[in-house]
This record gives sequence, structure tokens and C-alpha cells, in this order.
Amino acid sequence: MTAPDGSLTTLQARYGVAIPVDRGHELVIVNTHGTQAIDAWALNRANLNEFLSMEHTRSRLSRVIPRVGDTMVSNRRAPMLTLVEDTSPGVHDTLLCACNPEIYREHGCPEGHRSCEGNFHEALSQQGLALGCTPAPFNLFMNVAVGSHGEVLRAAPVSKPGDRLRFRAEMDVFVVLSACPQDVTPINGDDCTPRDIQYAVL
Amino acid sequence: MTAPDGSLTTLQARYGVAIPVDRGHELVIVNTHGTQAIDAWALNRANLNEFLSMEHTRSRLSRVIPRVGDTMVSNRRAPMLTLVEDTSPGVHDTLLCACNPEIYREHGCPEGHRSCEGNFHEALSQQGLALGCTPAPFNLFMNVAVGSHGEVLRAAPVSKPGDRLRFRAEMDVFVVLSACPQDVTPINGDDCTPRDIQYAVL
Repeated sequence: MTAPDGSLTTLQARYGVAIPVDRGHELVIVNTHGTQAIDAWALNRANLNEFLSMEHTRSRLSRVIPRVGDTMVSNRRAPMLTLVEDTSPGVHDTLLCACNPEIYREHGCPEGHRSCEGNFHEALSQQGLALGCTPAPFNLFMNVAVGSHGEVLRAAPVSKPGDRLRFRAEMDVFVVLSACPQDVTPINGDDCTPRDIQYAVL
Repeated sequence: MTAPDGSLTTLQARYGVAIPVDRGHELVIVNTHGTQAIDAWALNRANLNEFLSMEHTRSRLSRVIPRVGDTMVSNRRAPMLTLVEDTSPGVHDTLLCACNPEIYREHGCPEGHRSCEGNFHEALSQQGLALGCTPAPFNLFMNVAVGSHGEVLRAAPVSKPGDRLRFRAEMDVFVVLSACPQDVTPINGDDCTPRDIQYAVL
């Protein structure tokens, strides 16, 4: 996994990983090429049925998108992750589901197209774990805005190569990351090309 | 339950109910007193792990709040409920979690304060059913807006007495309704008083 000196590990484009992060430790996530959306989840290692919740976090923060200093909470309203650094313009998404097989079917892609939902469950299974549902993800660097009439507006990321987010774990968690495999829409950049990202546990 | 002639059944303030609605049939929900927020869920009767999903619905509709004519989808992106009538100004919420014991604890309420989350599980148990999670609800008549800086803004409902919503079921479902027990904030009206609602299956 991650070297103890905090050197960066690469997560391959279109794939996912479950990363154990102990309480008080930090996870750095680097948008190496600048245009990659990353779906993120966190689960309580002592009880996987407690996980980071977008609807509870929006309720707790009274804000759609967390900012530096904000602590995101679980579906039991317990502190899970605090965003301690964000070198990007802070455009992330808490509104949309993980991409999933049904979306790629609608796009007309062949069966078996990788998805963030699939990556979430694959990453858990690689730890010998399973969860019966797919929580709503925190979509890092994903450029989703709400228009003046309530429209959900999607666009290419506004982050730049090397932009990073740093989260402090407020309990012992698995953080699951998925380097989003979306290659039909420009959500991973105008060239519709998923790319590698990097991370480190500090 | 509901009379076959479609006459209205009362749901007591602060309580919930699970209502079977067959595919092609309609559920009318009446805001009898005008200021009551109602948390709503739908579950596939053939597989309770498939349920109405706010994050998939926002993704499918590219809209934060469904409007008349919109079909809301499940966590498998399958059509579940179509909003066919809305006599209110159309202000509803898909962003916030159901109120829950932790929120009332933060408010300083005594333990045992009723909650929409508790009502959801109680209503299922009255049908002999259970679900291991609490899906994000569709909060009917709940006045939640997104400010220009991404703030989540809560206010008293803008609906009037007798305003009604009508949904057509696109599969055989249980619709769970909770007449929200929130009596600390003005989400159920400026007098912070939960009130009865009514419904009918047509």
C-alpha cells in the first residue's frame, strides 16, 4: 500500500482502492493530471454500516460542498473526515450518484464498462469486505453546479495538475477512492480520458 | 388502510406509514394544514434493497427538485414514481437527511423524541419488513433552497392548506410517509407545530 514515509502511491485510471486510515492520520489525494474526477467514500472500520453520508453532511454543514475546515459526518452524524487542505478552486460534488452499469448502458457502451459503483464494491472485496448498498459518494474535483432554476450542470474539472486534497480521519476508516472510468461525457476533462491519480497516508 | 373509493386517510402528526401502491396506481398526498413537511420514500415491493434514490434521480433528471411530469428513479436507475400533479409552488427538498435521534440530541431534546428516520423503520416493521439503512428521503413541501454560495437555506413551507401531490407508481412499491416530528425549527411552519396530513391510493 502506502510507504510509511508518505511517498505517493498511484491508483490506475478507471480503478478503485480501499485505504485504511487511522484516526488522527491524514490522507492526501493528488489530481496528478488535473482533470480526473475521483469518487470517494469513507466507512467506519468497526462497523461498515456507518459510512460518510452526503445528506447528513449537507444537513450538518448547511452547505452543499464542504470547504477547508469542514468536518464531514456519517449516517449516524458522527465526525468522519475533516478537509484540512484543498489547493484546487474547491469545486467538488455531493449531489450525484456514482456512475454505474445502468448509466453506461444508457450511453450505449458495451456491457462490462467499469464504473465507480463497481470499483467501490471491488475495492471492498479486495479487503475481504462487502456492503449491501452503495452510499452516495463525495465526488472530488467533479465540476457540478446548481443553476438558478435548480438545474444540475456538469462540466470538465477546473482543477490543475498536482492539485491536492488532504483529509484528517476523525475515526478509524477505510477511504475508498475510484478514479472515475467515465469516458463518454467530459466529466474527466474535455478529452473524455480517465487518468491515474496518486495518494498517500500521512 | 385506504378506502377503495379513494377517500382520504389521516396520518397523525409525528407518525409514519408504509402504503402499498401497485404499478399504475396513484398516491395522493394532501398537506391538510399547509405547513407540514413530509418525508417520503419508495421501495420495490419485490426487493426492498431497491429504493427511490435522490442521488440517482438528480443524476437522471439533471435537476435538484423533480417537477410535474418527472419520473424519479431507484438506486438501480429504474423508474419508480412519476409526479403527475403538484398544486403547491413546487418547493420540495432532495438534499437533506431525514431527521434522526442525533439531530434531536443536538437540539437538546429529551431522548425518545420521534424522528422521520424512526418513523421510516417503524412503518416498515408494521408491515413485517426491515431495511438495514435509511435511504435519503424526498422531503415533500420542505422549503430548502441553495444560496448563491452553496448554502443550504431552510425556511417554513410555502404551501397552503389542501395543497396536494399526486404520484403514479411505475412499479409495485411501498411508499413510506412520515409527517415530520420536527418541533424545534420552523421547517413545519413558523409555529414549530407538526400537524396531521392525509393521503389516498387511487
